[in-house]
Amino acid sequence: MNLVIVGSVAFDTIETPAGRRDRLPGGSGTYASVAASFFTRPGLVSVVGRDFPRKSLSLLRSRNIDLTGVKIKRGKSLAWHGLYASDPNQRTTLKTELNVWQDFRPVMPENYRQAEILFLSNLDPESHDYILSQMKAVKLVAMDTIRYWIETKPEALFEAIQKVDILFANDEETRLLSSEFNLVRAGRKLQSSGPKIIVVKKGEHGAMVFGQKFVFSVVANPCEQVIDPTGAGDAFAGAFLGYLASREEFNRREIKKAAVYGNLVASLAIEDFGLTGLLQASQLDLIQRYKNFKKIVTF
Amino acid sequence: MNLVIVGSVAFDTIETPAGRRDRLPGGSGTYASVAASFFTRPGLVSVVGRDFPRKSLSLLRSRNIDLTGVKIKRGKSLAWHGLYASDPNQRTTLKTELNVWQDFRPVMPENYRQAEILFLSNLDPESHDYILSQMKAVKLVAMDTIRYWIETKPEALFEAIQKVDILFANDEETRLLSSEFNLVRAGRKLQSSGPKIIVVKKGEHGAMVFGQKFVFSVVANPCEQVIDPTGAGDAFAGAFLGYLASREEFNRREIKKAAVYGNLVASLAIEDFGLTGLLQASQLDLIQRYKNFKKIVTF
Repeated sequence: MNLVIVGSVAFDTIETPAGRRDRLPGGSGTYASVAASFFTRPGLVSVVGRDFPRKSLSLLRSRNIDLTGVKIKRGKSLAWHGLYASDPNQRTTLKTELNVWQDFRPVMPENYRQAEILFLSNLDPESHDYILSQMKAVKLVAMDTIRYWIETKPEALFEAIQKVDILFANDEETRLLSSEFNLVRAGRKLQSSGPKIIVVKKGEHGAMVFGQKFVFSVVANPCEQVIDPTGAGDAFAGAFLGYLASREEFNRREIKKAAVYGNLVASLAIEDFGLTGLLQASQLDLIQRYKNFKKIVTF
Repeated sequence: MNLVIVGSVAFDTIETPAGRRDRLPGGSGTYASVAASFFTRPGLVSVVGRDFPRKSLSLLRSRNIDLTGVKIKRGKSLAWHGLYASDPNQRTTLKTELNVWQDFRPVMPENYRQAEILFLSNLDPESHDYILSQMKAVKLVAMDTIRYWIETKPEALFEAIQKVDILFANDEETRLLSSEFNLVRAGRKLQSSGPKIIVVKKGEHGAMVFGQKFVFSVVANPCEQVIDPTGAGDAFAGAFLGYLASREEFNRREIKKAAVYGNLVASLAIEDFGLTGLLQASQLDLIQRYKNFKKIVTF
C-alpha cells in the first residue's frame, strides 16, 4: 500500500435541483478512497457506527480499498444533510450529526505504516501530529480542510499547514486562509506558509496548482448536467494522490497530470447522486475522458 | 482592411479597489480596436463629441487603427462611470450619459466595405441590418451584447443573433440569453439559435468556445493584480477577431488560437487603468505571454 487516506465515512442526505436522496454512503474519506482506487489500492482510516450497512463497506472493499483501518463502533455514524442551489458552488449545510466521528482517534494498522503518501482529509488539525507519528516512511503528506476548522481552530490549523507538503483548498477556503481575494496572490501566500504545493480547487472553474517554480492552471471538464456536487473536492484530492501513488516520481510533469486526473474524476463524481458516478465508471472510461479532455483544452 | 469594428468611443470614469481615474478614453470600440491592432489594421466606426481629445484619437491612429469611420459630432461624447468591488467580476454602473452616441447611425466609409470580418460591439440590435447592408464582401459577422439590450429589446436581439456567425457573451449574459444556468447547456442552446460559434467569456475563469463539432475551454492567464477590469471583454473579442483577420482560414485550429489570444490580450488590459495595459505592450510582449501561458496550461 502506498496511499493512506484518513477521513470520514458518513451518511449523506442530499438535496439538489435534480432531486433528493436520503442517507447515501458518503464522507470525505469515502469519496477520496473511491477516487484514488482508479489508480492504486488505498488504505482508508475512519470510523462508522453499527448502523452503517455492511454492503456499503463490501462495495468499497470490492473497489480494492483496504478497510483494515475502518473501525466499527457502538453508536451512530456521522450524518450530514446538505442543500445545493442551482449554482452548484452554493451549498448550505442543514445538519451535521457527528456521532461516533466526534471522538475519533485515528490508529494506523500495521500494514499502513510503510505508505509513502498520507492524506489528512478535513480532520481536526490537532489530530495531525498523532497520525504523523504513526507513519514510518511517509514522503508526501497532503491535507484538505474545511471552513469549520478555519473558523474554530485557526492557530492549530496554520501549525498543521506548516507541516504538510500539499495543501488542497477550494477557492473560498484559499481566500479565507490567505486573506487575499486574488487567487494567484492567495496561492503564493499560502505556499510561503509551508506547503511545497498548493492546489486550489475551483469547482466548475477547474483548478490551479502552485508548485515549486511552476504554476499550472486547468479548466474543469465541461459538464452538461451537474446532478450532485457532493464529494467533488474529495474525489479531486483522492484521484490526485492516487495517481501520484501509482507513479515513480513526484515531479512537475506528474503533478500536472495528477491535477488533470483529479479534475476528471471529480467530473465523474458530480454526474450522479452520491458515489454512483464514480462507481459506475471504469478505468477505460477515465482514459477515454482524458483523451476527450485533451482535445477540449489543446490549442 | 480585413476587420471592421463598430462600437463606442467614450469617456470612462473608473473606480476600483486600486484607485479612481476620471474621463479616460475608453468604450467597447476603442478597446476592441486596440486589441485587434496587435494582429491587423482594423477600421473603427464610431462617433465622438467635440469634447473628445484629439490626442486620444491620434494615439489610436498611431496604433495603426483606421479612424475614417469615426465621426466627430457637435455635442458631448458618451460618458460612463463604473465601480468595481474587490471581486473584479462585480461591476456597478453609476452613470451612463449617451450624448452623441444616442442617435448614432453607423455609416461605413468606402474603404471599409470590402472587409471580410465585421464586429458589431454592443450595438442596438435594430441597427445591425443597416450596417450589414453596407458591407459587400463580409464572410464572418460577430457580435457582442450587453444586459441592457437583453432586457429592453429581447426580440430584436434574438433576430440579430440569428444572423451572426459568432456571438460573444459573458457568463451572465449567456445565462440570461439561454435561460440555462449550466454554461455548457447554455452555450449549446445559443448555438442552436443561429450562430456557428458561441464564445462565452468568463472573466477570471477564462473562456469557452462552442464551435461546429468542437468545444474548446481555456483558463484565464493567471493574473496577480487586477487593476481595472474595464474593457477586458471587448479586448478579448477584438483580439479574437484581429487574430482571425490575420489568418488565411477560419478553421478549428485558428479559432482555438484566437480564443487564447483573446484571453491573453484581455489579461494585458486589466493590468493597468484604461487602455494603458494594452498600449504599453508590444507584439513581442504578447508572444512572450503566449509562450508562458502555454507552459502554465500544458500537461
